[in-house]
Amino acid sequence: MRFLRVGAYEVVIVRAQDGEIRAFQNTCRHRGSLICKEREGQVAKLVCPYHRWTYELDGTLIWAGDMGAEFDASKHGLKTVSLRHLDGLIYICLSDTPPDFESFAELAHRYLEVHDLANAKVAYTSTIVEKGNWKLVWENNRECYHCSSNHPSLCRSFSLDPEVAGVAADGSVSASLQAHFDRCEAAGAPAQFRLAGGGQFRLARMPLQANALSYTLDGKPAVARNLGRVAIPDAGPLLMFHYTTTWNHFLPDHSLTFRVMPISTTETEVTTTWLVNKDAVEGVDYDLKCLTEVWVATNNEDREVVETNQWGIFSPAYVPGPYSPDQESGVAQFVDWYVDRIEKALSPVRLVAG
Amino acid sequence: MRFLRVGAYEVVIVRAQDGEIRAFQNTCRHRGSLICKEREGQVAKLVCPYHRWTYELDGTLIWAGDMGAEFDASKHGLKTVSLRHLDGLIYICLSDTPPDFESFAELAHRYLEVHDLANAKVAYTSTIVEKGNWKLVWENNRECYHCSSNHPSLCRSFSLDPEVAGVAADGSVSASLQAHFDRCEAAGAPAQFRLAGGGQFRLARMPLQANALSYTLDGKPAVARNLGRVAIPDAGPLLMFHYTTTWNHFLPDHSLTFRVMPISTTETEVTTTWLVNKDAVEGVDYDLKCLTEVWVATNNEDREVVETNQWGIFSPAYVPGPYSPDQESGVAQFVDWYVDRIEKALSPVRLVAG
Amino acid sequence: MRFLRVGAYEVVIVRAQDGEIRAFQNTCRHRGSLICKEREGQVAKLVCPYHRWTYELDGTLIWAGDMGAEFDASKHGLKTVSLRHLDGLIYICLSDTPPDFESFAELAHRYLEVHDLANAKVAYTSTIVEKGNWKLVWENNRECYHCSSNHPSLCRSFSLDPEVAGVAADGSVSASLQAHFDRCEAAGAPAQFRLAGGGQFRLARMPLQANALSYTLDGKPAVARNLGRVAIPDAGPLLMFHYTTTWNHFLPDHSLTFRVMPISTTETEVTTTWLVNKDAVEGVDYDLKCLTEVWVATNNEDREVVETNQWGIFSPAYVPGPYSPDQESGVAQFVDWYVDRIEKALSPVRLVAG
Repeated sequence: MRFLRVGAYEVVIVRAQDGEIRAFQNTCRHRGSLICKEREGQVAKLVCPYHRWTYELDGTLIWAGDMGAEFDASKHGLKTVSLRHLDGLIYICLSDTPPDFESFAELAHRYLEVHDLANAKVAYTSTIVEKGNWKLVWENNRECYHCSSNHPSLCRSFSLDPEVAGVAADGSVSASLQAHFDRCEAAGAPAQFRLAGGGQFRLARMPLQANALSYTLDGKPAVARNLGRVAIPDAGPLLMFHYTTTWNHFLPDHSLTFRVMPISTTETEVTTTWLVNKDAVEGVDYDLKCLTEVWVATNNEDREVVETNQWGIFSPAYVPGPYSPDQESGVAQFVDWYVDRIEKALSPVRLVAG
Repeated sequence: MRFLRVGAYEVVIVRAQDGEIRAFQNTCRHRGSLICKEREGQVAKLVCPYHRWTYELDGTLIWAGDMGAEFDASKHGLKTVSLRHLDGLIYICLSDTPPDFESFAELAHRYLEVHDLANAKVAYTSTIVEKGNWKLVWENNRECYHCSSNHPSLCRSFSLDPEVAGVAADGSVSASLQAHFDRCEAAGAPAQFRLAGGGQFRLARMPLQANALSYTLDGKPAVARNLGRVAIPDAGPLLMFHYTTTWNHFLPDHSLTFRVMPISTTETEVTTTWLVNKDAVEGVDYDLKCLTEVWVATNNEDREVVETNQWGIFSPAYVPGPYSPDQESGVAQFVDWYVDRIEKALSPVRLVAG
Repeated sequence: MRFLRVGAYEVVIVRAQDGEIRAFQNTCRHRGSLICKEREGQVAKLVCPYHRWTYELDGTLIWAGDMGAEFDASKHGLKTVSLRHLDGLIYICLSDTPPDFESFAELAHRYLEVHDLANAKVAYTSTIVEKGNWKLVWENNRECYHCSSNHPSLCRSFSLDPEVAGVAADGSVSASLQAHFDRCEAAGAPAQFRLAGGGQFRLARMPLQANALSYTLDGKPAVARNLGRVAIPDAGPLLMFHYTTTWNHFLPDHSLTFRVMPISTTETEVTTTWLVNKDAVEGVDYDLKCLTEVWVATNNEDREVVETNQWGIFSPAYVPGPYSPDQESGVAQFVDWYVDRIEKALSPVRLVAG
């Protein structure tokens, strides 16, 4: 059982004994009390702490005391939340009419399969709160123009080539990057840059700096027992983002997921999860500090620049300036995508004449 | 002198040397400074700390320096707040046109007289803040459906019979409960269930669990020297509420008052006062821990469920569910009363044709 | 370099190597990040921490990486903030069209010249936050009706004569005060009471209590080496205010500036700066505690009464009372000036017929 706050919503995610994973609104169908209060744990049933209304892990109400003869328990099961699996990753959607997920799932599955996430375990999780709007968190993520002056440890492995963070607006790719894609693909690791879903998601397996194999200070792999079957040690990270809630780095030796959760207009929670092979043993196959230190530091450095950015933007004297055409094409892509989404949401629905 | 915050208002209650108790708006008639800042204490006059404007304990302005010949001190006395006594209890009302108090006072006086509260002293006061709307505090108070799973110490003495918290909507009373009322009344302790004032107040002397005489872990009286003249040791508590600010338990040996004060839409202050015979001596006639531990624990348990209830209700996915007809008739009564009051307040005033 | 928050604005004030002092909006012309984050310090250039855009101390953008051929750095210098010197004091204005400053500067210069502030050094700075609206801070400042009951240490030197804080509404001055003005002026220290700028600023050199020469507990000078050239030791403080941001006390031996900065509707930052002759040596020419203790205590006492005043004013029962004609003429002057300003700002602009 895991409990997640998504904006004003409270969601509980459970895996039943049959292995099925489901998500529910974490509010009792009686008087609305929160049911699960712990962040995570193991439970046999979901029992409301107020009056002991008891639900199965599939949401069915199985006990409610003294409710009288007319009470129909079948109409008071927990409200479900849409949930989808994708190669070991779980996506939820609070809408009653979730948007299309297939086009993303089909494409991403092709790239993710080789990473074998179903056989991963969580080595470490870090949650930080950045005092900045979630869009500033994304704008920060979508460029590495700021890296050289802010991320000393990340810069030992992550490439400063602007193509890695952005790729040109027309989708053209340099010859050297294309050679890297081709080499990965030939070895069975899908790599070609793909921006799809109207710009909502992106997949590409990008090279690290020469001689770097993973996000470590010395560039060596962080885990001796690989997670997945990427045959080329220097394939670099598969970079995958899906606006507005997650970006990910899947490396030959381990994988990283990042979850972006707005708390308020000026606070954003960022949760980073380090995944390793489920048979990897801490202290034998990997050293936890060595595995995590680069992104723990990088996240903290990004928090600092995002907060300072937000601080300045609060000033009524702030006016947006121009982007660097080379370095900030990814930021422009994010902003264009967001504006397009908002414009569509705000547009009146057109009636089609019959 | 006692200082009380009532919503945005600041009220000071004073007892003058003549024994008269009065309440005033605690804001200086000069430039508005708060006059009394201490929660309680003894003062000869009310002196504003800003410029020493000085008021008698009856609110008269008796000194204001350098105000010139045209200044009329008699027009700058403290604003009074309506105040009523009821057998040792004090009720205030901030309205300039307080609603009827007589119908409540006449009924309650009949029940309270035997408790002799004028000869009580305060043994202990506890103030807690529950992070929940005040209506959730009341809904929690008006049922004991939640007691068995949340109040282990209270359940040693308080009856789990739903009639005790609620009584049926049509006012009908079981034979065993009627027998208890009759026995108390015959012994001079008014007991019959009365819901009046359009549902705003309720009085009833309810039985405790068999063998329990007071709110203690072993069910024995908490105080050797009784407060009041209830002749039957197992008469149980006289339960009295008056929406929206107070519920009370008057036992043969001691009495409890609870004050409900909204601080914000999601915070409610609950103050509990333990009253004992003014001649009872702590350590001789009563042990303070034994006297207070059941309701200190119960209040804290209620705070927990109210806060968890509020937490779940914040979710946009929350929808109200059905009440238990047996267990939650008191909650329904409170909600109906409240909705009725709000509807009347929102209705346009009808003009009567002449 | 000094960084100042003015309401929602972030301002950085710098003195370049050529001695020129300038103020800028402290937000990068690229993506808006705050540039200077330290309260004060020394820098060769202003470098944005996000992407290293670099500005000269005159605001010129001199480096911005990878911005492409079409980027015009000359159009992306820091936005300037209007800044004026006045005898060693600095005034800034956030408006793009600052109001007239000359009439104040011309008058104040005549009074300030003798204080030689260009040769001052900062001996001490104190910043406190008063939980009250900034107008209550000013109302408190503009009368000494509250002094006798709140400021025991200030009352050892500051005069309780109401004329000192207020002067009569018609500008008439008592014979004894006029004699003091005349004596100062004859000795080369401008002193005559002047209220100008439609009531926005006031200058007057006011006497201290008999035998007091400075704001010390024993009334003796706090600094052996005078700041300025006021020839009469008992000239008292030149009192200068300029609504809404500053009042000042310039004494024969040292000077005090007070800056009033609203943080929110109910919080006001008050910064007090003690200035002494730049050649005065701490521990030799002055004792820091002796220099500062009277106003450190007085500010703290004023914070207490302002907060208590605000507390009472929050009550819906508060109604404004009358002012003391003798003691609170200064408060009335402030309120009248403020109301006049607001009325003018709210009035529709009149079109002049051609």
